[in-house]
Amino acid sequence: MRVVVPFDAADPKTRLEDALAADERADFARVMLGDVLAAVRAAGHDPTVLSTEPLDVDASVTVDERPLSAAVNDALTRDGATAVVMADLALATGDAIARLLAADGEVVLAPGRGGGTNALVSRHPEFRVDYHGISCRDHRRIAREVGADLEEIDSFRLATDVDEPSDLVELLLHGEGEAASWLRERGFALVAGEGRVRVRRE
Amino acid sequence: MRVVVPFDAADPKTRLEDALAADERADFARVMLGDVLAAVRAAGHDPTVLSTEPLDVDASVTVDERPLSAAVNDALTRDGATAVVMADLALATGDAIARLLAADGEVVLAPGRGGGTNALVSRHPEFRVDYHGISCRDHRRIAREVGADLEEIDSFRLATDVDEPSDLVELLLHGEGEAASWLRERGFALVAGEGRVRVRRE
Repeated sequence: MRVVVPFDAADPKTRLEDALAADERADFARVMLGDVLAAVRAAGHDPTVLSTEPLDVDASVTVDERPLSAAVNDALTRDGATAVVMADLALATGDAIARLLAADGEVVLAPGRGGGTNALVSRHPEFRVDYHGISCRDHRRIAREVGADLEEIDSFRLATDVDEPSDLVELLLHGEGEAASWLRERGFALVAGEGRVRVRRE
Repeated sequence: MRVVVPFDAADPKTRLEDALAADERADFARVMLGDVLAAVRAAGHDPTVLSTEPLDVDASVTVDERPLSAAVNDALTRDGATAVVMADLALATGDAIARLLAADGEVVLAPGRGGGTNALVSRHPEFRVDYHGISCRDHRRIAREVGADLEEIDSFRLATDVDEPSDLVELLLHGEGEAASWLRERGFALVAGEGRVRVRRE
């Protein structure tokens, strides 16, 4: 199956600006992308990066400057059965990706925290994405409207996109790739206190 | 296997005090407990509530006034192979619980967001819990120290304990039990905006 990894190369990870400087955010986004590509390969597939601009990365790259939904819908139209895996799923492992790709729904959704759709598979010719708003709810509706058999994957690793400082906690706790090491090398560590654990930078 | 559901009957869910009044929090905690018990039963097991005080609930109840870790460790010592499932896993389904119980590690952990341990199975006579601090990290260490074969379950439904207002988003999006209905009946709804979805109350 074709596995597409959309990547926004311009000013990535702006919601991490309290934790990382702009050049660090760009580096971190690239390191997370590398981890996602490695997880797709560990699941036995050859990923294609769908990038907003040309990118020097060890994978095939398709450049599409349009917004995310338009670019992904073009890939779905062109390629038939396709998986779409977000580039910031730095907790993803080969096992988690394999579970996504092995699910046999015509549409398979891996919801993200906060209503997103972090990964999906479409084997239905009429299914289209709309990442704006509460996309996992919209994708359920679109699947229903086109008559696609829908399945959802219950995965914490795929649900955890790394967008906000609190997400760095999960990466430090559970990350098995380069992104977790990248954070540790830059002084990020866990702090236990009241309620949930936080990160601090030394 | 014995499945224990710890429940703190005194002033539950204090971190939801910005969203719910004290009597509502007590009600909500009971409704979530009911959903968890239903999920355990849907997985084919008969749950026991481990409560800090006597409780009128449709399940067998063991009363233990001690702090969580002491009470759970007593259950682990007494009962042999035991699963411990937190009472606020309102997204848990029979499938998610069945996956936990089917994993064959001597110690099986289902990490929670923010470093917690939302569910576990112990089949090792020396494994003990310590829920204080970054418990999932501590439980990995304890399993290693007693020489137990460790397995982790990758489940968003088990990772999502409902503790803070942002967790209500996940319950409204993915809850299949009574707790999600309870919230909707009290006017909670999703709001899409910049970044992740939030809840508001009408």
